[in-house]
This record gives sequence, C-alpha cells and structure tokens, in this order.
Amino acid sequence: MRNALAEKFGIEYPIFAFTPSEHVAAAVSRAGGLGVLGCVRFNDPEELEAVLTWMDENTDGKPYGVDIVMPAKIPTEGAAVDLDKLIPAEHRAFVNRTLDELGVPQLSDDVERATGTLGWLHSVARAQVDVALRHRPALIANALGSPPKDVIDEAHAHGVPVAALAGAVGHALSHVANGVDIVIAQGYEAGGHTGEIASMVLVPEIVDAVGDSATVLAAGGIGSGRQIAAAMSLGASGVWMGSYWLTAAEYKLGSAADGTSATQRALLAATSSDTVRSRIYSGKPARLLKTKWTEAWSKPGAPDALPMPLQNLLVAEAHQRIVASEDPEVVAMPAGQIVGRMNEIRPVAESIAELVAEFDATVARLEKLK
Amino acid sequence: MRNALAEKFGIEYPIFAFTPSEHVAAAVSRAGGLGVLGCVRFNDPEELEAVLTWMDENTDGKPYGVDIVMPAKIPTEGAAVDLDKLIPAEHRAFVNRTLDELGVPQLSDDVERATGTLGWLHSVARAQVDVALRHRPALIANALGSPPKDVIDEAHAHGVPVAALAGAVGHALSHVANGVDIVIAQGYEAGGHTGEIASMVLVPEIVDAVGDSATVLAAGGIGSGRQIAAAMSLGASGVWMGSYWLTAAEYKLGSAADGTSATQRALLAATSSDTVRSRIYSGKPARLLKTKWTEAWSKPGAPDALPMPLQNLLVAEAHQRIVASEDPEVVAMPAGQIVGRMNEIRPVAESIAELVAEFDATVARLEKLK
Repeated sequence: MRNALAEKFGIEYPIFAFTPSEHVAAAVSRAGGLGVLGCVRFNDPEELEAVLTWMDENTDGKPYGVDIVMPAKIPTEGAAVDLDKLIPAEHRAFVNRTLDELGVPQLSDDVERATGTLGWLHSVARAQVDVALRHRPALIANALGSPPKDVIDEAHAHGVPVAALAGAVGHALSHVANGVDIVIAQGYEAGGHTGEIASMVLVPEIVDAVGDSATVLAAGGIGSGRQIAAAMSLGASGVWMGSYWLTAAEYKLGSAADGTSATQRALLAATSSDTVRSRIYSGKPARLLKTKWTEAWSKPGAPDALPMPLQNLLVAEAHQRIVASEDPEVVAMPAGQIVGRMNEIRPVAESIAELVAEFDATVARLEKLK
Repeated sequence: MRNALAEKFGIEYPIFAFTPSEHVAAAVSRAGGLGVLGCVRFNDPEELEAVLTWMDENTDGKPYGVDIVMPAKIPTEGAAVDLDKLIPAEHRAFVNRTLDELGVPQLSDDVERATGTLGWLHSVARAQVDVALRHRPALIANALGSPPKDVIDEAHAHGVPVAALAGAVGHALSHVANGVDIVIAQGYEAGGHTGEIASMVLVPEIVDAVGDSATVLAAGGIGSGRQIAAAMSLGASGVWMGSYWLTAAEYKLGSAADGTSATQRALLAATSSDTVRSRIYSGKPARLLKTKWTEAWSKPGAPDALPMPLQNLLVAEAHQRIVASEDPEVVAMPAGQIVGRMNEIRPVAESIAELVAEFDATVARLEKLK
C-alpha cells in the first residue's frame, strides 16, 4: 500500500484516520497511518493545547494531523449565551418532550450543562489553528469546505499541507482554486457531514477533475482492505476513514468508564441499513446512527432542524442526557454505512494490520484477472 | 478481466449489460459481454417473441440474457382498463396541470395512447418467461426481488441460471434461500429501482453474506474500467451495468429517428448531481434523471406517488407526451449517478474495449502498491 503520498507524509500506509479521540489518533500514527485529531469539540483552545502536547509525547515522533470545522459560509457568530436566544421555544419544547417520551432522564442538578459545539465558529476554529501550528501537525484538514485563504496561507507558511472535504466536483475545484493541497472525496455513505453522490461515482470524478493540481483521498464506506483497494482502483492516493475508529479499543466512547458503553453497543449492533442522513446533529446534512432519537425528528409534526450553529446548541444538553442515560436505543452519534462492518471492539494496530493484509490479498486476486 | 464466471457463461468479460434495447443487448453480446434484454416494456408476448427471434439472429451465436420485473409482493392484477379505475382523479389532474405548466403539448388525436407498463404484473412476466425459454437465454434476471419459486424451477429445468437484484443483505439471503444463482448487489447510486446502501458498502457485505452459495455481480455507479476494478476489489465476480448503455450509439432513445433525441441530450448534459430517487416512475423508489418533471413532484402540494403498478399507468401517457415534446429539460428517464460520466454517444464495441483496457491499466497500477 506504500505510495508517493505515504512517502511524502513519512508514513507507512496512506490511511488517514479522522477521530475525535487523541488515543485513537496517536495509535493510528504509531501503527503507520496518519491519525487526524478532530478538534471541533475543543471549545477552549487551552484544552486543545494540552491534548496536542499529549499527542506530541505519545506518537513516537510519528506524524499526526488535526481536523477543524470551518463552514464555507460563516455561521452566526457569538457566545453560546447570545446564540441561545436565537433558538425558538417550540424547538426546545420538542427536544424536552421527545427525551421524556423516550425515557431519557433529566441531568441531576450538580452536572455542568454542555454548552454545545462552538468549534465551527470561525473565531474558535482560527484559535484552534493557532494552537495546532505551535505543535507539529503534518496536516490541517477542514471538514466543511475550503478554510479561509489566510488560514491556508498560514498553514503553508508553516510548511503544513491543507486538506478539505468535498462531496461534489464543484467543491473539489473550488478547494483547488483556494490553494487546498489534498481533496477528500467524501461519498454519500460516509458518516457525519456528507453529500448525495456515492463514493463509487464521486472518487473518480474528483480524481479526473483535479488532475495533478491536488492529491485525492477517498472517504465514505471504507472499513476493509478490499474497500481500500477499491478506493485506490478508483484513483484515490489514499483513504480517509472516520466511523471505523469509533469501535477502536483505544476509544472510550460514551460514558462507560470501563466496559462497553451504550453508544458502542449501538454501533456494534447496527447494520448498514441503520443510518440516516439528517440535519438534526449540526444543522447541515450529516449521516447518523438511526435510533429512536433520529426517528423522533422525522415523524410528522417534528420541527425542521435549525441552521448551523444553532441546531447543535439546541441539542447539546440533549446529547449529554442521552449519553448519561446509557440506552443503546437512544443514541446521537454520527456514523457511516460502514457501521454494519464494525462488529467488535479491537485495538487500532490490529485493525491496521488486517487492512493492509486484506489490501495485499485483494491486489493479488486482481492480478490474476488481467 | 476473464474469470470463472465469464468462462461459465462462455463470454469474454464478466460485463453484464442491462438494456431495454435489443440493438444494444446484441452489440454487447457480440463484443464479449452478456447483453441482457429488459422485457418489462413488452406488454404483448408476441412482440417479445419477435424481438428474441431477432436477438437469436443477430448475436453471432453468442449468449444473451433477459430481464423481467416481478415484484416480490404481487401487485394488484388486472387489465389496464380496470386498474385505471383505481387512480384518483386528483392525481390525474396534477399530472395534466403539471404538463401544461411545463409547456408539454397534448398528443394529437391520431396518436395511439400508451397503456403503461404491465410487465411487472406476474401474469405478464410469466408469459415473458415462457416466451424467453422458447429461445436460448443464458440468464433470466429479475429486477425486483426473487422470482416466484415455480419460475426459478422452470428456468433451472431449462438449464438457465436465475439472477435477482438485491439492495440489502437480507434481500440477498432471501434470494439464495429461494434458489437464485446470481445476486446482483445494486447500490444506492444505481439508476432505476434502488435501495439506500451505496455500492462501496453493499457489495462486500453481500459477497460475505452469500459466501459460496451464489455468485455476486456489482451494480450501481459503474461506467469505467477503474470502477469495474473497484467492484472486483470489493469481491464481485462481475459487473451489471444499466444506465451506461443509454448513450450507446446502437440505442435510438427517444423519438428522434436520427440524430440525438432530447432524452439523450439531457443524459449527455447531466452531472452526477442531476439524479433523484423518487417513487414517481413506478411507485417504488427508483433513481431518475432530475428534470423539471421530477422537480414538480417534489414541490409542496404535489401528491404522493401511487403504489405499483398504478403509478406507471398514471404517468404512461405523460411519458408519451414528454417524449414527443423533445424538451431536454422535461424528461422522464431512470438513470444512475454514473450519468455524469456519460458524455458522448458511442458504439458499444468501443465502450467495451475501453472498459477492458482501463481495467487492465488499473490492475497494473495497483500491483505496484503491494
């Protein structure tokens, strides 16, 4: 699986692993891929600073990347307390009524309430970039559109390449025009924010459209060596895997301090049919695990999701209640269709070894067809 | 690209081409693939008889297949005239008003009105199977679910293998239990009737689920040698391509006797974003070219589509009017996301040669990554 892209990054395999967990990101980098830490959850730059220091110390000198979320169109700015005023009472009432109906308990009074994700405000994301550049990121990726030109320029001035997700050829061409180095072609089947064109069609389209002016990674639906071989067949120089790592042993996902959390049990049990593309997580279409929570929002009478960033502020405390309730049937979690293949909790190094071995076996099988 | 499946069928390449055009089907078989003639349009068995006789005479003795459409759940039976009574007046009014608003002229009085597709009634499809088995089909495929057991048994008694489309693992396992020999894993990106799971995820899932008990073809999003290599990487033994042939030179699609019809111009101009999954063609979710016609049905106030087979009877005359109007912005045509890659009218033999050459080049490229 070694190629020019892997060489450029000084990694063994062109496997880019997006994850909000520093433990998973570090394990991927140590195992020969590139761990990319999702920063959107760090409302406080100092918290990110501490985590990146930990990354520096726990990656054996191997490269890692960071992922920010700056929407192409700047969302409403403001502190959580001001933004909160923009949320309609009808929406708050729906959320509370739904949680009650689903049997999700209230938080106890002594629990600090989550304020919601502000990482996709440009002000917060810029601070994250500043923090990241004080460390040694091998890549800055933006999960929504091109980053603003000054962010790209700043990264380049530090010698750091910039990646951006694209769900259509038009996005990819715009990224390239803005100076983005790596286009992540993210297909319909992907978890989180995603478009409508499936990987099989999207990846070669974007590869052909950008030509030599950018490197293309394939994202969406990848969780096996066969799928990596398929992505490379389609012309991608590497893969970007996200959902797949949610069941990594290094990821203590959900509220269970030890053992398997309700979120993980829901992921392990889900089939590829158990996801839904919805605006209820962030305000933009994102693929989520299909649970009683997502179903409640698609019933007649449910309100439309609010625009970014209001929707996530609206559901922030709900997400907190849901995690605390430990009910695998009521989960709020982005996940791609590959969730059907995520059937055990396993260490990152074991997964990467298997991905590489299956990739090699797949290429050997194809060779015989020439 | 030669493999055991190709050998079994006595073809050069495991490229299965679904097409309603006998000219395209015959050209594919002559070029080394397996042309599979879509029979759903033959309301009259005698017409099919004549076309299959033509196929026998124009395929140089090479094998070909036939494709019927028997829904797993038997739809309302009856002659068109009786079924017509089940169509609500509100729906008829919407269709007529929409066509008027889109500037689609009425048919002139001397044009015989289309009765709509009855081929998905079991009575009609059974007659099609009987006609087909009097010829020399190498395959009987069913585009919706498993065919009834007696149809499978009859095909097997004639030594003819049976294929069925599957959009999820559950469908595939049910096909195998019913005695189906070849499962066509049809991803979300495909044209016509399709499910929600994209090919990248669906194909390996179905390959793993059916194991040695059936052969798997990959369908959805395939229109290049890279995509065939991707499908084979995912574990498919061959590919099933449909939309791709709509721009074959041998296919005189639409009303233009010579030159390029409005339908073809619409297909050539469309990008991968210009399709939509909708029930308005047949009553079941099918991916169609996105045009002013499909958009009209998704506007607020538009009625819900009727169940199969009523919806197609409802729109049959509308489709006739649309074809006659020769407006590329008002087209009713199933097409997959691969339509973005269909940018020229070209002969089948040229396409197949290119698919094979690109497949070989892709495998050669992958070999270097081992």
